[in-house]
Amino acid sequence: MKKNIDVCFSPALFNLYDASESIVVVIDVLRATSSMCVAFHYGVKSIVPVSTLEEAMLYRAQGFLVGAERKGEMVEGFDLGNSPFSYMDEKVKDRNIALTTTNGTQAIHAARNSFQIAIGSFLNLDALCHWLQTQNRDVILLCSGWKNAFNFEDTLFAGAVVQQLLPYFKLTNHRDSALAAMQLYDLAKGNMYDFLEKSSHRKRLEKLQIEDDITFCLKPNQTDVIPVMVGDAIYNLNVLQSL
Amino acid sequence: MKKNIDVCFSPALFNLYDASESIVVVIDVLRATSSMCVAFHYGVKSIVPVSTLEEAMLYRAQGFLVGAERKGEMVEGFDLGNSPFSYMDEKVKDRNIALTTTNGTQAIHAARNSFQIAIGSFLNLDALCHWLQTQNRDVILLCSGWKNAFNFEDTLFAGAVVQQLLPYFKLTNHRDSALAAMQLYDLAKGNMYDFLEKSSHRKRLEKLQIEDDITFCLKPNQTDVIPVMVGDAIYNLNVLQSL
Repeated sequence: MKKNIDVCFSPALFNLYDASESIVVVIDVLRATSSMCVAFHYGVKSIVPVSTLEEAMLYRAQGFLVGAERKGEMVEGFDLGNSPFSYMDEKVKDRNIALTTTNGTQAIHAARNSFQIAIGSFLNLDALCHWLQTQNRDVILLCSGWKNAFNFEDTLFAGAVVQQLLPYFKLTNHRDSALAAMQLYDLAKGNMYDFLEKSSHRKRLEKLQIEDDITFCLKPNQTDVIPVMVGDAIYNLNVLQSL
Repeated sequence: MKKNIDVCFSPALFNLYDASESIVVVIDVLRATSSMCVAFHYGVKSIVPVSTLEEAMLYRAQGFLVGAERKGEMVEGFDLGNSPFSYMDEKVKDRNIALTTTNGTQAIHAARNSFQIAIGSFLNLDALCHWLQTQNRDVILLCSGWKNAFNFEDTLFAGAVVQQLLPYFKLTNHRDSALAAMQLYDLAKGNMYDFLEKSSHRKRLEKLQIEDDITFCLKPNQTDVIPVMVGDAIYNLNVLQSL
């Protein structure tokens, strides 16, 4: 029997979902989950998502690199920010990272009681979909949004996953968010950059001059990593399975 | 300066919005707010939205007609249900009604601290838009959804209002829900009935054989009533202004 695939537009709505037996894919396309995919592609050993800057700094005392983003910018005194490019560096190889971001970390926290948490972004779209297809589990795509508000970029990625997996899954009768995400992705997929031109997050990010980050984060299938949560930390499933 | 227009996909997200100076349009297309528009068109004097069946029955003792819907069906022992056709009756003229429905009443409750609450449905689309255009107030379109979950029919109506009012309002930078609603409405407007064919609520309602209700509720501009909340009750603004 086919498993369910569903989409949640905001961590604030996640309590409506029964996730105890589901794989929850946390999505923060611009830029937390994209950067995590890059980090693992460049050999990071683990990422611990933490809520506060202070908590991240406690991990530094234990030898972790620390990453932090607030209002879209890297926080002073930290080793890494939220740009995927900052993780393309030899220095991250085999390291553990404590990371706190505005939205992505909160979404991971909201999903903590699910069967399993995975990390999704356009960068690992196909790899993630192939893996989800083989797990025989209900799947919930959790959009981080912006401070719990609906946003386009996370919704479009959720729609891309639904479109790819729909032959193998079924949609719930409880809500229309998966269908809506798929419809919006279908509208946007020809040119996501232009589609997002009007979006709220793009307008916020414009000031930060991270056009290169956005172009990079919208380009599918640049890595085959599948970051998954084990205990309090995220690891690259491919590495775990090869141990 | 242009006022803001925004869309909220669920009463559970409404606490993210600052509504104290805004007009909030409560939307429950299938079928609570459509039925309210019909009720006022047929001369109902006031509608008091109440949360429980017991509360509704207390109003009956004061001479009110009572309406109740649970799981899409009229509750036994009540005078009226949630079908717009049940309000097309001489018996409702000049009467006060106490009404409780699964989703619409809850959305009205969520919006109680806003500057003003109005009731929207495709049936009063143009009249509502013309009125909103003249109020010089921020507008929030609040979709009731289904038990706080995102649904298509309310989103499409919100999108129709945004599309009609966009020349006179501006969109917020905080989220993309208004843009998404407009994009989805644009996709669907050629044949909303077919578009909704796949939706979750349609599937739930199929069992109830209310295809006629749905066809009716999707037909725009059948009345010029503008139901607004004053105190604890909803009235027809046109009647209030003629007093």
